[in-house]
Amino acid sequence: MEKVAPFEVTQEFLDKLREAVKAKDEAIIRKSLEPIRHEDISLLLEEFDSDESKYILELLEKEMASDVIEDMDEDIRTKILRSLDPHEIAEYIEDIETDDAADILNDLPVKIREEVIANIKDEEKANYIIELLRYDEDCAGGLMAKELVKANVNWNVVDCIQEIRRQAEKVEKIYAVYVVDDDEKLLGRVSLKQIIIAKTSAKIADIYNPDIISVYTYQSKEEVADIMQKYDLEAVPVITVRGKLVGRITIDDIVDVITERAEQERNLMAGISEDVEEDDSVWVLTRARLPWLIIGMLGGLVGARFIGLFEADLEKIAALAFFIPLIMASGGNVGIQSSALVVQSLASSSIFAASPWKKFLKTVLVALLNGIVLSLLVYVFVFLSYDIKLAFVVSTALFSVVLFASLIGTAIPLVFHKLGFNPALASGPFITTTIDLLGLTLYFVVAHFLYNL
Amino acid sequence: MEKVAPFEVTQEFLDKLREAVKAKDEAIIRKSLEPIRHEDISLLLEEFDSDESKYILELLEKEMASDVIEDMDEDIRTKILRSLDPHEIAEYIEDIETDDAADILNDLPVKIREEVIANIKDEEKANYIIELLRYDEDCAGGLMAKELVKANVNWNVVDCIQEIRRQAEKVEKIYAVYVVDDDEKLLGRVSLKQIIIAKTSAKIADIYNPDIISVYTYQSKEEVADIMQKYDLEAVPVITVRGKLVGRITIDDIVDVITERAEQERNLMAGISEDVEEDDSVWVLTRARLPWLIIGMLGGLVGARFIGLFEADLEKIAALAFFIPLIMASGGNVGIQSSALVVQSLASSSIFAASPWKKFLKTVLVALLNGIVLSLLVYVFVFLSYDIKLAFVVSTALFSVVLFASLIGTAIPLVFHKLGFNPALASGPFITTTIDLLGLTLYFVVAHFLYNL
Repeated sequence: MEKVAPFEVTQEFLDKLREAVKAKDEAIIRKSLEPIRHEDISLLLEEFDSDESKYILELLEKEMASDVIEDMDEDIRTKILRSLDPHEIAEYIEDIETDDAADILNDLPVKIREEVIANIKDEEKANYIIELLRYDEDCAGGLMAKELVKANVNWNVVDCIQEIRRQAEKVEKIYAVYVVDDDEKLLGRVSLKQIIIAKTSAKIADIYNPDIISVYTYQSKEEVADIMQKYDLEAVPVITVRGKLVGRITIDDIVDVITERAEQERNLMAGISEDVEEDDSVWVLTRARLPWLIIGMLGGLVGARFIGLFEADLEKIAALAFFIPLIMASGGNVGIQSSALVVQSLASSSIFAASPWKKFLKTVLVALLNGIVLSLLVYVFVFLSYDIKLAFVVSTALFSVVLFASLIGTAIPLVFHKLGFNPALASGPFITTTIDLLGLTLYFVVAHFLYNL
Repeated sequence: MEKVAPFEVTQEFLDKLREAVKAKDEAIIRKSLEPIRHEDISLLLEEFDSDESKYILELLEKEMASDVIEDMDEDIRTKILRSLDPHEIAEYIEDIETDDAADILNDLPVKIREEVIANIKDEEKANYIIELLRYDEDCAGGLMAKELVKANVNWNVVDCIQEIRRQAEKVEKIYAVYVVDDDEKLLGRVSLKQIIIAKTSAKIADIYNPDIISVYTYQSKEEVADIMQKYDLEAVPVITVRGKLVGRITIDDIVDVITERAEQERNLMAGISEDVEEDDSVWVLTRARLPWLIIGMLGGLVGARFIGLFEADLEKIAALAFFIPLIMASGGNVGIQSSALVVQSLASSSIFAASPWKKFLKTVLVALLNGIVLSLLVYVFVFLSYDIKLAFVVSTALFSVVLFASLIGTAIPLVFHKLGFNPALASGPFITTTIDLLGLTLYFVVAHFLYNL
């Protein structure tokens, strides 16, 4: 009852545990980990090295240790597992649901993977895992677990309850019983609530709900996430193209998919090309960041060449250089805003999209409004601080940059989307670099002609 | 059974429906909407105006219409409801769970809200809604529903099943029965699986699981989301500070919280200040975008002033102006990368964070590595295309900009976080503007001194 709120693992706790591990004081380690949930032990183990983690895991009950392993950070887990024997890994795997088991094995070298599978005593489980390993990790088949409770449509509620009893230990969260015909074809579902309410003699055929949403093994995890989110599902059955029930995806996996997607999008917008985290090595971090930095730098060098073309103008009116930052910053900001809005509308795209022309008109209107306000403000400022000709040149250039940056910022993610790239890529350094060059061009061309009027 | 996969609502379908609505052909409308899920009807209604939507809603069965209303886009829903009488709204509200009912009423003017509540026939429901309206929308109390199934610890399984029967219609998804004492204090839970497996004569006291995670009414929705995600919960009970069970939050609401958070973060990174979507009005879109554009523009004007201080240098060496874009772009890119990494690590923060000094050292190392590579490349390029002195100046300046942009990009989100702002704000125009100015300063100061060596 003291566990009503999540147990808070503190730094002091960690320090004490670390001392106990150093002293190999098994009694204290066992006692201090006893009240802690496996999710928190997984986090704790990230603070220890592989040998220490292995030592701690061995002190836990087998089932607890399996839960801890399942919940760990992938990289750390793989490191620990590589220091274990295949039969030891197999023992842990026995207690882990098939979807997570397959993910864990997927991170291990093929040889170890095969040896582990050969060591799994539960043959059905081993076969399930082999089946799951065949699927791509990014599709419904790679996300599903084989654990589920199904009932034949000809059963009655008592049969169904017996099946639940039989499967209770294997399937952690049941949610519903899936109803299939003699060929394992999915027909519908009965919720646990219905089973509890129904008379035990009731026939499944009479009480099951045929209005069931399912996904195909080949559907992408993003599609599955969208469907589960739209229809508020806590679990969705996975079927083959022939309609045979082969697995089940639960909402916890989908929450992870949604979180990962957001992280990936943020990285793309920030110009970070790999799936990195702040605690990765200096080398990994640098490698993930350099490509986009180099692209930005090359853009800057092209820009330098370009401004060079107008060296004569610059020598006459040095003040022209003053406003390069203003033009670039405004163009970049407008471009990123525009592309972010498109990315958002692509993510939540309704099939009844407004007509492209209507959208285009709106983009232009917003751009015009923004452009007018910004260039008026700049006109006043430059007029007051410098002179009227410069004010005219800078504000006209700014207006054109805002307009074009809006259009390009809207167009690029759409093109990326059509080509099959992640449109968020277009909200990052790519768009900034493009728009910087465009802005410089517009600025100097406008300045060149207006000054020579 | 034809509904095994989600029904695809096509443009043709919409066109046909639109014709039927224009012709007021009730039979066709009813027939064509019959096989469609309420979530899809909600989307369809977004394509009609308020009067048409009202007309369609009236043709649906009451319960279906309530589901449709619950699932609609907030703005559109509020518009439709405002055209209804309070007693009509109350009829719909009767069929909507309390959490969604409170959200819907929250969007209506206080007077209408009060009238609706007065018209709700189910007095318990009305009181529940009044209770929920008291909570802030951003905390667990504002997110929870009153619908849940609870059992007294002194009951046995039969009592519990009777209670489930009694509540079955009100509580759509049960997941688990919460166990309370005579003072309604939360003691634990019994999953539906356990109830099905247990003997009907078993006492709740003997089978309930006291190891239950709950949240307090005052906890923020982000905290609730983190807890539910970490412990893979599909529902979490909400308690008062005294431990009394007052409601329940289900995972579908948390999925929405996570999605909203990601969207908000993207908007902040892109410099869009309100919760806008591409299909909002031109005016709303402009208003959401202008503030950050103006901040960026002011930064640009300060930059202009600043470069002005070095007018003499520029007049001597016009080529200095060529590299302003390079310096700005590189600084901006490095700054945004750094801040995005910090935002990410703050989002997934472990309490056992690496020591600040270790982090700082790593940031510096990555910055040094990036800086060295970029400035070497630039040195070679500028040396080959221009002259050695300019190459030296530009690459030295670039190196310092990369270093400082990394540090500032790392520091600002941390400061924002400390001050209680959303750190993602620091990955957007704010950081670009700051770093632009810093980059210009470094560039011209370095150039000024190196050229006069």
